[in-house]
Amino acid sequence: MNNITLAIKDIRKVLEDKISTSKATCDVYGENETYFDHMPPDAVAYPETTVEVSQIVKICAKHDCPIIPWGVGTSLEGHSLAPRGGVTIDLSRMNQVLEIKSEDLLAIVQPGLAREKLNEELRATGLFFPVDPGANASIGGMAATRASGTTAVRYGTMRENVLALEVVLADGSVIRTGSQAKKSSAGYDLTKLFVGSEGTLGIITELTISLKGKPEAVAAGVCEFTSVKAAVNAVISAIQLGIPMARIELIDEVSIRAINAYSKLNYPEKPHLFMEFHGSDIGVKDQSGTMEEIIEEFGGGPFRWSMRPEDQTKLWAARHQAYYATKTLFPGKQGMSTDVCVPISELAKAITDTQHDLEKFNVIGAIIGHVGDGNFHTLMFSDPNDPEDLELNQMIADRMAKRALEVGGTITGEHGIGMGKIKHMAREHGDAMSLMVNLKRSFDPKNIMNPGKMLNIN
Amino acid sequence: MNNITLAIKDIRKVLEDKISTSKATCDVYGENETYFDHMPPDAVAYPETTVEVSQIVKICAKHDCPIIPWGVGTSLEGHSLAPRGGVTIDLSRMNQVLEIKSEDLLAIVQPGLAREKLNEELRATGLFFPVDPGANASIGGMAATRASGTTAVRYGTMRENVLALEVVLADGSVIRTGSQAKKSSAGYDLTKLFVGSEGTLGIITELTISLKGKPEAVAAGVCEFTSVKAAVNAVISAIQLGIPMARIELIDEVSIRAINAYSKLNYPEKPHLFMEFHGSDIGVKDQSGTMEEIIEEFGGGPFRWSMRPEDQTKLWAARHQAYYATKTLFPGKQGMSTDVCVPISELAKAITDTQHDLEKFNVIGAIIGHVGDGNFHTLMFSDPNDPEDLELNQMIADRMAKRALEVGGTITGEHGIGMGKIKHMAREHGDAMSLMVNLKRSFDPKNIMNPGKMLNIN
Repeated sequence: MNNITLAIKDIRKVLEDKISTSKATCDVYGENETYFDHMPPDAVAYPETTVEVSQIVKICAKHDCPIIPWGVGTSLEGHSLAPRGGVTIDLSRMNQVLEIKSEDLLAIVQPGLAREKLNEELRATGLFFPVDPGANASIGGMAATRASGTTAVRYGTMRENVLALEVVLADGSVIRTGSQAKKSSAGYDLTKLFVGSEGTLGIITELTISLKGKPEAVAAGVCEFTSVKAAVNAVISAIQLGIPMARIELIDEVSIRAINAYSKLNYPEKPHLFMEFHGSDIGVKDQSGTMEEIIEEFGGGPFRWSMRPEDQTKLWAARHQAYYATKTLFPGKQGMSTDVCVPISELAKAITDTQHDLEKFNVIGAIIGHVGDGNFHTLMFSDPNDPEDLELNQMIADRMAKRALEVGGTITGEHGIGMGKIKHMAREHGDAMSLMVNLKRSFDPKNIMNPGKMLNIN
Repeated sequence: MNNITLAIKDIRKVLEDKISTSKATCDVYGENETYFDHMPPDAVAYPETTVEVSQIVKICAKHDCPIIPWGVGTSLEGHSLAPRGGVTIDLSRMNQVLEIKSEDLLAIVQPGLAREKLNEELRATGLFFPVDPGANASIGGMAATRASGTTAVRYGTMRENVLALEVVLADGSVIRTGSQAKKSSAGYDLTKLFVGSEGTLGIITELTISLKGKPEAVAAGVCEFTSVKAAVNAVISAIQLGIPMARIELIDEVSIRAINAYSKLNYPEKPHLFMEFHGSDIGVKDQSGTMEEIIEEFGGGPFRWSMRPEDQTKLWAARHQAYYATKTLFPGKQGMSTDVCVPISELAKAITDTQHDLEKFNVIGAIIGHVGDGNFHTLMFSDPNDPEDLELNQMIADRMAKRALEVGGTITGEHGIGMGKIKHMAREHGDAMSLMVNLKRSFDPKNIMNPGKMLNIN
């Protein structure tokens, strides 16, 4: 028997029927939301406790068996695939809210808990978890990829909203990082090291996350512009004035067309900003009033406000469905979502350069962006049976990444590296790459923790 | 010649007169702001470039010579002392603002730049650097200790405000971490790992930091309360309501007495909150109005507003001088500032427990706190010639730290570990301690980077 088979056999002794090697099951976990090949694991384990996760990891460490943590599988960079086989650890049975400490604005949750479920459970408290990547991802997966999304401009990313972790390390030992204090200067910031580590340093088994009070007032609205550039310049102006926007999203013409078709809406086919303001009644009026002035200055308008909660929900649902909406415009094709983030002064140029590339290479791409953070995505589509088609998308994605680096940006604002962006890591990090590799080696000397992701370890 | 002497000889070959071994000089760098013994280095080097820092570190690595980075020397936990001798690297000649990117709300600065100097240089831009630990510390030192202070409740700590770093590692190699993008999911968060690492993993030689737009309106004010508990409960209420306070400081009776004497003021000798609100004219009125209602609810008042900038400056100068003001009440004695941070629901109890300890053990202590973050300090004083006096202060500090941990808090909110709190690290971090030790060993196998700080490495 090979090492993986031996590991599975030993895990079965401990977990009994909470591990499956059926082809149908493994195939499900070998799928992905985007353009990567099918890469199934050899088995899928369903631990229900930290102790069980630790047992699995100890066995895999003994047998040098790859471990792939799994939340919901919404990654766009192949994080949850099994390129070297091994055991996928599906954490969906560890999906409880363990404690809500309303007075301290925090909750302790398990990693398999989905984001929407968390907010449902918080409903009665008047609090909410602010990070919103669109997809109904698991909180553990969001932490592992340092996810963010539409509200990061106001509330920060997972980096800012994870206070403490329980982590199972590569030898199966269990540690706790961080505390319930809002800030600390006590030692190395291990919490921030595990956030964004994509399962390559350890498996997150518990998270302490910060919550926010639901704002007294919410105003949402959309506004069209004659060009992407004008829309972005309005955003830059608002950021520099310090307007505390809760959401500020750019949706280009192609995305508007997709959203209109998918969500049965009829926005004019022009670049739009989708916005939301949170605060007191007076605060929201003040913010949105200033924003209207800025928008007018940049030739945008008219402003269409959604003041009723149900209309706001509809507006953001339409935005969140943009990826799937755009996909339906291209039946049978596979999608790719790029994800760069640049200093905001470079944003208009980064987007228009991308638009020029799309035109030049005759590729249809939809651009949406968390523009308040300088972060945007291009959704592109390719025929799964035509490798050249995918290569063309790849080329455009690569050019975006390179241009982002040239202006001091990053190759990924929120999707992570996974398998898709390893090739750009050295370009972004230079000599710091060897430090990352050493770090990985010191945490996971056998390279069993999500191998083949984020870094190439020889 | 011993290893340190050999290192100094080699450094002199490269830096010529930019290294001093004079006893008078070394004695200055062996001093500290608080109760630690005199621990001078064997030499002090004054590099002017990253290349020179790298050269020094390479030589020290060759000779196993301890390296102690030095900013301004305002640490309260002995970070800049030389318990094992070696070479102190004074970074004060690397004190330039290298670039201000106003549109992107960021600046690139050298580590020896002092905080007040930075804000002077920013004056014409309409921007400011928000982190304010009180002392006129160096930006590099602030990053190294993960400093924060009065404004962290609104603008975050150094953790949130450092975007990118240049660091000289223990072998003298130079790396860059982070980028100018507001967020990134590209690999391990090395920036956050070096922030707060107290010079034990590398020497920070350049920082990219985030700036904020100066608010359109600022309102500051003070308000007395009948008890610390009432004041803290008012703060908890304000935090839960989401009032975006820019500063919210608790000053107890003893501190008020000291401030009155030192700054020639006449506040009533009662616990006070010192507050500041930033925003638009309307926003500030809205926030401060809500705050007045809360304060009334908790029996506080009257509110004394300082609306003129010069009065606001005077108010915060008085607050910032609290440490020195309290010290002058105890001529000839040495001060100790404790620093714990707890979940905010535990704050009132943490402070009143501390007050009970002070009474019970008959120690005079002044309590001040960044109460919006759950962070507070007790300033205590001891006769430098009476070891029992210092032990008594230590005991009270230790009891504060232990109680903070019991309620999910941390042993230091912002001062760091240095030499003073190593003994509590294992209690806070448990099994994660061995991970921190491994991390330190993998970054600095010879233990030459600020040895004897933060961790005990055998």
